[in-house]
Amino acid sequence: MDAFDLVVRNAHCATAADVFDADIGIKDGRIAALGKGLAPGREEIDAAGRWVLPGGIDGHCHLDQPMNDGSKMADDFITGTRSAACGGTTTVIPFACQIKGQSLRAAVDDYHRRAHGKASVDYAFHLIVSDPTPEVLENELPALIREGYSSFKIYMTYDDLKLADRQIIDVLAVARDEGAMVMIHAENTDCIAWLTERLIRAGKTAPRYHAASRPMLVEREATHRAIAYAEMVDVPILIVHVSGHEAIEQIQWAQNHGLRIYGETCPQYLFLTADDLGIDDSPSSHEHGAKCICSPPPRDKANQQVVWDALAAGVFQIFSSDHAPFRYAGPDGKLGAGADARFDQIPNGIPGLETRMPLLFSHGVLDGRIDICQFVALTSTNVAKTYGLYPRKGSIAIGADADLVIWDAGTTRTICNTDLHHAVDYTPYEGIEVKAWPALTLLRGTPVWRDGRFLGTAGEGRFQACALPAPARPKFSREAA
Amino acid sequence: MDAFDLVVRNAHCATAADVFDADIGIKDGRIAALGKGLAPGREEIDAAGRWVLPGGIDGHCHLDQPMNDGSKMADDFITGTRSAACGGTTTVIPFACQIKGQSLRAAVDDYHRRAHGKASVDYAFHLIVSDPTPEVLENELPALIREGYSSFKIYMTYDDLKLADRQIIDVLAVARDEGAMVMIHAENTDCIAWLTERLIRAGKTAPRYHAASRPMLVEREATHRAIAYAEMVDVPILIVHVSGHEAIEQIQWAQNHGLRIYGETCPQYLFLTADDLGIDDSPSSHEHGAKCICSPPPRDKANQQVVWDALAAGVFQIFSSDHAPFRYAGPDGKLGAGADARFDQIPNGIPGLETRMPLLFSHGVLDGRIDICQFVALTSTNVAKTYGLYPRKGSIAIGADADLVIWDAGTTRTICNTDLHHAVDYTPYEGIEVKAWPALTLLRGTPVWRDGRFLGTAGEGRFQACALPAPARPKFSREAA
Amino acid sequence: MDAFDLVVRNAHCATAADVFDADIGIKDGRIAALGKGLAPGREEIDAAGRWVLPGGIDGHCHLDQPMNDGSKMADDFITGTRSAACGGTTTVIPFACQIKGQSLRAAVDDYHRRAHGKASVDYAFHLIVSDPTPEVLENELPALIREGYSSFKIYMTYDDLKLADRQIIDVLAVARDEGAMVMIHAENTDCIAWLTERLIRAGKTAPRYHAASRPMLVEREATHRAIAYAEMVDVPILIVHVSGHEAIEQIQWAQNHGLRIYGETCPQYLFLTADDLGIDDSPSSHEHGAKCICSPPPRDKANQQVVWDALAAGVFQIFSSDHAPFRYAGPDGKLGAGADARFDQIPNGIPGLETRMPLLFSHGVLDGRIDICQFVALTSTNVAKTYGLYPRKGSIAIGADADLVIWDAGTTRTICNTDLHHAVDYTPYEGIEVKAWPALTLLRGTPVWRDGRFLGTAGEGRFQACALPAPARPKFSREAA
Amino acid sequence: MDAFDLVVRNAHCATAADVFDADIGIKDGRIAALGKGLAPGREEIDAAGRWVLPGGIDGHCHLDQPMNDGSKMADDFITGTRSAACGGTTTVIPFACQIKGQSLRAAVDDYHRRAHGKASVDYAFHLIVSDPTPEVLENELPALIREGYSSFKIYMTYDDLKLADRQIIDVLAVARDEGAMVMIHAENTDCIAWLTERLIRAGKTAPRYHAASRPMLVEREATHRAIAYAEMVDVPILIVHVSGHEAIEQIQWAQNHGLRIYGETCPQYLFLTADDLGIDDSPSSHEHGAKCICSPPPRDKANQQVVWDALAAGVFQIFSSDHAPFRYAGPDGKLGAGADARFDQIPNGIPGLETRMPLLFSHGVLDGRIDICQFVALTSTNVAKTYGLYPRKGSIAIGADADLVIWDAGTTRTICNTDLHHAVDYTPYEGIEVKAWPALTLLRGTPVWRDGRFLGTAGEGRFQACALPAPARPKFSREAA
Repeated sequence: MDAFDLVVRNAHCATAADVFDADIGIKDGRIAALGKGLAPGREEIDAAGRWVLPGGIDGHCHLDQPMNDGSKMADDFITGTRSAACGGTTTVIPFACQIKGQSLRAAVDDYHRRAHGKASVDYAFHLIVSDPTPEVLENELPALIREGYSSFKIYMTYDDLKLADRQIIDVLAVARDEGAMVMIHAENTDCIAWLTERLIRAGKTAPRYHAASRPMLVEREATHRAIAYAEMVDVPILIVHVSGHEAIEQIQWAQNHGLRIYGETCPQYLFLTADDLGIDDSPSSHEHGAKCICSPPPRDKANQQVVWDALAAGVFQIFSSDHAPFRYAGPDGKLGAGADARFDQIPNGIPGLETRMPLLFSHGVLDGRIDICQFVALTSTNVAKTYGLYPRKGSIAIGADADLVIWDAGTTRTICNTDLHHAVDYTPYEGIEVKAWPALTLLRGTPVWRDGRFLGTAGEGRFQACALPAPARPKFSREAA
Repeated sequence: MDAFDLVVRNAHCATAADVFDADIGIKDGRIAALGKGLAPGREEIDAAGRWVLPGGIDGHCHLDQPMNDGSKMADDFITGTRSAACGGTTTVIPFACQIKGQSLRAAVDDYHRRAHGKASVDYAFHLIVSDPTPEVLENELPALIREGYSSFKIYMTYDDLKLADRQIIDVLAVARDEGAMVMIHAENTDCIAWLTERLIRAGKTAPRYHAASRPMLVEREATHRAIAYAEMVDVPILIVHVSGHEAIEQIQWAQNHGLRIYGETCPQYLFLTADDLGIDDSPSSHEHGAKCICSPPPRDKANQQVVWDALAAGVFQIFSSDHAPFRYAGPDGKLGAGADARFDQIPNGIPGLETRMPLLFSHGVLDGRIDICQFVALTSTNVAKTYGLYPRKGSIAIGADADLVIWDAGTTRTICNTDLHHAVDYTPYEGIEVKAWPALTLLRGTPVWRDGRFLGTAGEGRFQACALPAPARPKFSREAA
Repeated sequence: MDAFDLVVRNAHCATAADVFDADIGIKDGRIAALGKGLAPGREEIDAAGRWVLPGGIDGHCHLDQPMNDGSKMADDFITGTRSAACGGTTTVIPFACQIKGQSLRAAVDDYHRRAHGKASVDYAFHLIVSDPTPEVLENELPALIREGYSSFKIYMTYDDLKLADRQIIDVLAVARDEGAMVMIHAENTDCIAWLTERLIRAGKTAPRYHAASRPMLVEREATHRAIAYAEMVDVPILIVHVSGHEAIEQIQWAQNHGLRIYGETCPQYLFLTADDLGIDDSPSSHEHGAKCICSPPPRDKANQQVVWDALAAGVFQIFSSDHAPFRYAGPDGKLGAGADARFDQIPNGIPGLETRMPLLFSHGVLDGRIDICQFVALTSTNVAKTYGLYPRKGSIAIGADADLVIWDAGTTRTICNTDLHHAVDYTPYEGIEVKAWPALTLLRGTPVWRDGRFLGTAGEGRFQACALPAPARPKFSREAA
Repeated sequence: MDAFDLVVRNAHCATAADVFDADIGIKDGRIAALGKGLAPGREEIDAAGRWVLPGGIDGHCHLDQPMNDGSKMADDFITGTRSAACGGTTTVIPFACQIKGQSLRAAVDDYHRRAHGKASVDYAFHLIVSDPTPEVLENELPALIREGYSSFKIYMTYDDLKLADRQIIDVLAVARDEGAMVMIHAENTDCIAWLTERLIRAGKTAPRYHAASRPMLVEREATHRAIAYAEMVDVPILIVHVSGHEAIEQIQWAQNHGLRIYGETCPQYLFLTADDLGIDDSPSSHEHGAKCICSPPPRDKANQQVVWDALAAGVFQIFSSDHAPFRYAGPDGKLGAGADARFDQIPNGIPGLETRMPLLFSHGVLDGRIDICQFVALTSTNVAKTYGLYPRKGSIAIGADADLVIWDAGTTRTICNTDLHHAVDYTPYEGIEVKAWPALTLLRGTPVWRDGRFLGTAGEGRFQACALPAPARPKFSREAA
């Protein structure tokens, strides 16, 4: 065995199942050896007994995605991946979004152009299928799945993205035939439209009415429907950004009946509530509310505990940011429709790529709600398995990419947007305390963040073609390994 | 780094979370390094791409346990651990059973004498607490927990073992204060007694009425009650040998509500049905039934699928044999009460130490019901974590004991008692096909089973004092790591 | 008090709550007095201690409804109401069905023409809303509700009838504003279409594949969706012809959460199974299957018990026939598409108006599954209350119409189509034994069926304008009496 | 027909199913005729269109029951039945309580002596079985059931009353054989004892800790256990005084699975909360708390809504007072153990006989949570059916006793203990507004309460022997009528 390029000494490692102390020998960007007293490397880093964990994989984030409503995403692949690296995330999976009328292939090609030469961490693409024409279903989608785009998202709401129910069934059938993973945004679009009309007619247009326009039953119904379609087609699906107990009960029901239904939740459902959408009609409520509008909306305090419990109990397999970066200020931001924009005119989405890992490490692991192995599973291993990046990504194991984070879990800091590296002019988590932050982020053995400084290079992040998914099994039944 | 004592080359390894290919370097009985192209060891074994998994830990088995009804366990630590080794299990955790009136300490001392010099695989002890006097609760139990006996079983039925409800609560309170793990045999003893009396009065005494005397509601009720006590005391518990859907629903309910309720199931609930207790009043039904009597009894075919689903879905964390070895023939065996012994006179229990791992590997992993990581978790990692043996046992990780099994997953064989190494004169799994069997079992780096030959040595197995439990998290909430 | 026109002596009466013995004094077609030893009437009938119950109200039947697929309903108001009278039903509520493009008012006018001068029992109309244009929603529907058409049915499947989801919400909102009752045919149309296409592509076209094209999840999903819409709009709804446990669980969930969700079931789900749709590809299976095709399809044997239990437990408030009369023979019957018509080419529906009451009386009351008061509630009182016919119809109480049935519960007879009075050439219940049949049916005090002879007169049945619904309360919450 | 003794004219009547306007002809204390324009009676009362309802039956109240802890019930049959009459209740069913060691027969004889010549409304007896010796099980209980004591209560807690689990099963088996109805006080006694010890050890002794000593899981567990025993024995049971959602979910589960499990709730769970047990350690909290201590304790505000919903949805069949009358002041009252009595030293129970009907009429019917028929069912008809008093009691029907209440639903009054007629020196409902109160109460045709004056006579109330129960069917399955 040749000399290691780098040895991380005295690492207190965790995987999704194990905790062990070892030196980590890295060669050609991969983990070549684990052991005590490994031979010297060309470079050495002493982890000094600190937690060394697999780099985060953000399985749900939006970067430089074309918008059709006048808004514009503030983060492109340069700023988005920079902020990922600084928060301990070494792989992002944003969305190549098909615009209605466009071919899927064209969407993928366009998105590669947007990413090319800009990423400082590795990246793969989910597809968004918004126009499942026969050509898409029969040719493009199967071909793209085989080429490395093996997961795709579909929407049950949003006028420019949503699929009709029959289309949902048809794309699920393709996923079944090809072995792809389907992510579903589950909210009932007709309920939202009906409630929105009534709210606006009643003059209830402030951001806080966004929550009233999408009560939990809207999410529960769509979740039940998506589960029924998956059951009929006999294909696993992933319900993304699950917000609260009504949808959770549907997912539990399905899992308890042996269905392969997976769930994802996000920081906004653990750290925000509907009050963050505003508590009155004041300008400050409008500002705070506009910044925090996302869908599904955050719910109440009691509900946060339900989401924590479901996270701890294994109902959710994946914890993502759903980073959707719009600036508050400016004509292409949250208030593009005007200073007193109605709730339904404000772009949906909040930033979160950089804060995802520290928030969960602090309030999940260090506060004792989940253990360190669950943290690794939720933020990295399960994501890699679910989207076909495993075993190259997602663990500390022989042969895996040396995407590693050394955590500084000693000091307390307060989240402040001025410390973050995205291009958004606010963070919804402003002021929340965290007790951990990455001290060092390695991408394939190379530091991209160290001691508070971004060291990455645009273009060093590589595109990762995805194999077929092999989702984490804690909630998976009836299929061969 | 010194030379390895042994290197297992080209291992296709799985842990409870990961799959990777590596050489495994072993030194002083522990895993010292993982890597590609490790330096030569004093000995070398080529795994040739076969699965190499952590040695099995059987968290629920009975060996040489004193009986008070005239029956006698056929397996002592010699034959029991031999049969474990041959079936890929490298650690057993039988029970030091307190006889009513006896001190717990005396039970432990006696059981050490029974084990001493006989075991060919490693072992730890669970306690059975049958007489929780103030002395036991205040002094003996806390002291023993701290000395390495950190888990104990209590019974809600069986006249000589069962605790009154207040006693259950009191021992749970000790477990909470000390951080111990309580295993609960959950069947309602009054229901069983009432039904048994009526069956016998009606002349329904054949072995098959054993199932009628313990219907699922008997298990459901006791499971609900145990959960309520654990909830009140705020302590995790493990419901052992869960047989079917009614108890499973109770456990799911608890897990879905954030309670730390764990579950174990056993091969008999996947591979046997109530029909194995006999289908008529013939002598052959009596024989087959007597051999298969265990509690809770196996249920129907539909129920087997429910248990498989719960296994795949993560409702169960542990898969054990509940090996309880009574010979069919002889005065201290199943028919000690006579050739036409009533169902309530036949010792409860079936052997299964040696067949546990091959049955689950074949029908679980190879038939695609669970994946390889789940297999490792259920048979080894979760057991080690739940009973305080982790990280020394339960994984392939730096620093862990080199308890490894190389699996031969190529050929089909039919389970036949003459091929097994226990001292029981039958196996309830006679005739079932398996597609995998251990080719090699290593105990701390030393072969104890290889190519069909037992190579172990009585006395080489070591007692393992247990640290406090840190159960697998997939169903664990609200506690610090 | 003037003399009674008729006194029914020695009646053993039951209402939905009470059982009592009394003479019933009838005057001007109404119940004028109840008591022991009432003064003589101009006519007298001695009930001789037999059960005297309120006349049945069939809240779900189709008569002379225009079809657009070449089929034709065999029963018009003459034969349909005749068969009702002979089976103990004194009020029918068929459907004035809006054809897409047609005004609701035109549909009602047309349906009055079809009924005029033909009915021998009383009748009211439900509307079927298939084309909820703004004119319908804003003007026609509110006006018709106020005029006496206070209940309407909507479909979630069938191409010529089904509403889009937003339309469903809009009609529910009208129902809420006006206090009307909405009946919902809950099956997911996209699932049915997708499954049907696949079955046909696979050559699975026999009638028995009708069941495979509409599995229970199709009904469960639509039921959940309908409940969510009713919850959002805050309006009670009635799920009609519920077939089995998956939909039942959804309704129970809603009722247990305080939602005003009502349920109806029908004889086909108690007395038929999917096997009645054929068990193989033989001509006899095709014939039997074609005759029994209805939607949702009957399920399996175990499911019948679940439906009985839900009936007994109060999950269902209404028991209807869903009489949909197509002849087997002839060009406008079941085989209009040819002798080997595909399952999706065969008109959906079975006859049942005449057999509904005897089947439930025999197998429900006399077999001890429900009590006599439940029978009255399910077949008459609850129907009257739910559809605004109460208190004129639906009970034996002072002031109510003297619609009464004297039951002959002594003798056993076998259902045989030649004994029935509809115009259909078969009954799906052929050969089933019943232990009760009406001896005498009184419509407003006048015999229309007596001792096996139809005595009614076309045109004597009167149209009943419906008041606003006041559904039976056993499952009703949060509203004023 | 002879002349009526009394005619109630223009009554706006409701039964458990029907609403109708009629004159009510009464003869020999019974309802002899219903009709419009009945012949004149010797006496006439004009109800003038007011609600006339069946007299209330309080199926759960304690009067002059011997206590063994130094306390004494303030109400005997004189004051208790007087207060019943004034609140619209015409039949009470208190408990003949077996003291351990006493024969059941002796308890019944003693209780007859206590009742003799004192009651001003009718009465029947439940038994309390506290000592089910073989003699009791085999002889006394079957004999008494047949003699008219066909319902009995058993306790799962209270040291002087509680049965062991095997005893519970044995008495259920007698109930099954004899057709009796078993009422179960379902709280887990070991949980209560354990929690109480810990609270007291921690110095938490104020009345408000009564709630902490009996959390909902204590009730949930015992309810589940009672249901399991009833399921095994195959006998209907009634869970009394159900307090909140955890027990309700168990009952719903049972009802949804076709089990004949009935439920009762009481005013304290609709109108009180745990705050009524005190909010701090002040003397006023101690006083208020001591007055309101009852078991199970009232829960929180959200829970009141759950109980209302379950009442409306038919989960509960019976609404009782659980009147248990202890004076606050005096040595045999709430503070017999001293001014700062610990929560576990204060007699359990609150008065409520007189307020039960007005509270439910006002806040149930008039506030629109239940309808008038449900009110009649819950307070009278279902009680009569469940305890074998029907059809003599419980309805307005030919042949029934003329126990009638004319309601004054026009004016608002505030509940004030000085207006009540029991012998207790407080009411827990002090200050609550009601919008209805009986204007006239008739016992078998004779006024016992009219226009604010008690007109009854001690000794005029008659003992009613109970036939076998025929419980209300809304939740009853699988049995013959």
